[in-house]
Amino acid sequence: MLVKEKTDQAINILNQENIDCWLTFVRESAIMHDPNLDFLTETNVTWPSAFIITKGGEKVAIVGQMDRATIDDLGVYSPVLSYVQGIKEPLQTTLQRLQPRQIAINYSRDSEVGDGLTHGMYLLLMDYLREINLEQRVVSAERVVSRLRACKTRAELDRIKEAIDHTEDIFRLVKSFIKPGRTEREIADFMLAEVKKRGLEVAWEKDHCPAVFTGPETAEAHYRPTERQVEPGHVLNMDFGVKVKDYVSDLQRTFYIRSPGEETAPPEVVHGFQTIVTAIELARQALKPGIQGIEVDRIAREHVVSQGYEEFPHALGHQVGRFAHDGTALLGPAWEKYAQKPFEPLEPNMVFTLEPRLKVAGRGVVTIEDMVVVTEDGAEFFSTPQKELILI
Amino acid sequence: MLVKEKTDQAINILNQENIDCWLTFVRESAIMHDPNLDFLTETNVTWPSAFIITKGGEKVAIVGQMDRATIDDLGVYSPVLSYVQGIKEPLQTTLQRLQPRQIAINYSRDSEVGDGLTHGMYLLLMDYLREINLEQRVVSAERVVSRLRACKTRAELDRIKEAIDHTEDIFRLVKSFIKPGRTEREIADFMLAEVKKRGLEVAWEKDHCPAVFTGPETAEAHYRPTERQVEPGHVLNMDFGVKVKDYVSDLQRTFYIRSPGEETAPPEVVHGFQTIVTAIELARQALKPGIQGIEVDRIAREHVVSQGYEEFPHALGHQVGRFAHDGTALLGPAWEKYAQKPFEPLEPNMVFTLEPRLKVAGRGVVTIEDMVVVTEDGAEFFSTPQKELILI
Repeated sequence: MLVKEKTDQAINILNQENIDCWLTFVRESAIMHDPNLDFLTETNVTWPSAFIITKGGEKVAIVGQMDRATIDDLGVYSPVLSYVQGIKEPLQTTLQRLQPRQIAINYSRDSEVGDGLTHGMYLLLMDYLREINLEQRVVSAERVVSRLRACKTRAELDRIKEAIDHTEDIFRLVKSFIKPGRTEREIADFMLAEVKKRGLEVAWEKDHCPAVFTGPETAEAHYRPTERQVEPGHVLNMDFGVKVKDYVSDLQRTFYIRSPGEETAPPEVVHGFQTIVTAIELARQALKPGIQGIEVDRIAREHVVSQGYEEFPHALGHQVGRFAHDGTALLGPAWEKYAQKPFEPLEPNMVFTLEPRLKVAGRGVVTIEDMVVVTEDGAEFFSTPQKELILI
Repeated sequence: MLVKEKTDQAINILNQENIDCWLTFVRESAIMHDPNLDFLTETNVTWPSAFIITKGGEKVAIVGQMDRATIDDLGVYSPVLSYVQGIKEPLQTTLQRLQPRQIAINYSRDSEVGDGLTHGMYLLLMDYLREINLEQRVVSAERVVSRLRACKTRAELDRIKEAIDHTEDIFRLVKSFIKPGRTEREIADFMLAEVKKRGLEVAWEKDHCPAVFTGPETAEAHYRPTERQVEPGHVLNMDFGVKVKDYVSDLQRTFYIRSPGEETAPPEVVHGFQTIVTAIELARQALKPGIQGIEVDRIAREHVVSQGYEEFPHALGHQVGRFAHDGTALLGPAWEKYAQKPFEPLEPNMVFTLEPRLKVAGRGVVTIEDMVVVTEDGAEFFSTPQKELILI
């Protein structure tokens, strides 16, 4: 069971990081959902709730009385404490008993997945801790939760792989649907129907999953499919993924629409495509535990620029897990918006995308997004990498 | 269009509250979703983004370049500023131009819907503001966002009403499905099939929406339907709602399962049911703009206790909107977990549930949850109130 597996992993990480206690403090999690809660329970909680994991191996849950039965059923927490009027007393009593030297809580300037505690809840928690003289013990849980999320267990990898397989299937199916005159919208609808037929959901918001861009005049990324029609001579690209048991895939593929009599794509499209394939392969070869994402990003970025293209206006790759953009460590440049993420050392069982892009003037955007998993001494493709332009 | 309507309403509220500027600061909103973002855009944003509404009527959005086209399309923000590397410069420049005396941001100790800013994002924002000497201008936007969410526009009320109508339909349909021998799970599945047939979603997590409780030995609330079978003599209750265009309903209904030859429910069940009906009617009559929720809760709570029952272990009622538990003002007692919510004065166009409950020994839980809307001088039922036990 995932909650058991991930809370056990959390205990290991607390020991490696030498942190006594990890505290997740949430309320009405259907409204503001700390992304770390998904590793701690299978359902939302209603009233202020605390999930406490200790280095020594304790797992304590404190929840409102009417949420109790659901948490009991997990069979993971002992004790499960519950209350009617307020969490303050059971929370203070528990922390006074544990006397942790460090209380790691979910906030982070740099990492959204480490930043699940709202500012109001932070103020409330600090009030409670001050009353029992533990407020000085608070530290950020960023390292703990980033590693917990990033280093996938076998069960998590299997779910992602299943999502990848469905995505690749649907890319194969849509190939015979694409032809001149079809609109981006029609192509997306074809794919969404296939997702529905399989009883799945898409990996991110339905309005731009899949995202479909045909020809040279598109919004290029993060935009909904339009009524623009496929035309011969267009480069068409798609960004698409599905969700399987809460884990997702995130892949991009590039197609070329041949004109009548045209055997293959024109040289400038082929050159663009080969540049992307090579950038991805160079990046994959560089990936290994211990390296920083900024180094991997630089290798792909410099290759694209060396071939005469503008550098891509985003990171080379991000982690994938419960979200399409998941995790702290990033294969990205040292840009302000990426904060410290490109400097996090990589670890085994992290899953990344590799997704450089470039524009071919008058044709469209060439981009491939494949997924890789970091191994003990390198990285392997987790998706079946696109090595050939898909010719329509 | 809802975003236009709600951002215009926000400008009015800023003028009433005399606050110069409301700033919503988010990133990767698919991961941590500030509930106020739903009034500001129709889609998630990826990189650090700011939505600024001013008392003077300006609406400014600052987003990552690849999110820009989607925000432009809303036609609500002017200017829409975008960036590639970092938000700091455009955000600082905008605030320096506006020079607001107050910058209201989304944090609150007491209200989860007012508490959309994470602690890490708060720290980041304060760093930016300190550099331009505006950090002293920060105030909580709790009042602004609570009123914006609570005071429904016509379009919002229409959506909620539509959700209520579907819910009442499905309660009517399930009546003929319930009979001795059916399990809670089967009853829930019947209702879920009906939701699916209508192309809707349920109002909260599917695993306990509907929640179905039959007989005296149940978890009573917030728990999934079990294999427990309906038996003659049982009181059965359900908690259920659906979502229509992002707005939900939340209703409970009580059924009594007659034994062969039994005409009506036994006196103790009838007495319990009448107690709940009366408590709801007394509460509805007390509801009006300006009153505090604690007063309304007290009227219903005292009535239930006066009839010889234990007081219910939760608030009399909560707001309903985009979430089943929505909004700050609450019809509840002065318990720690409810913080200041029971003391917020009520306003017209707030939508509340009224949901007292009590146990009838050996039979089950009697509870009705109806929905009301606050008017200029009172409150009206928004759902069709249950006045009779539903006899099976």
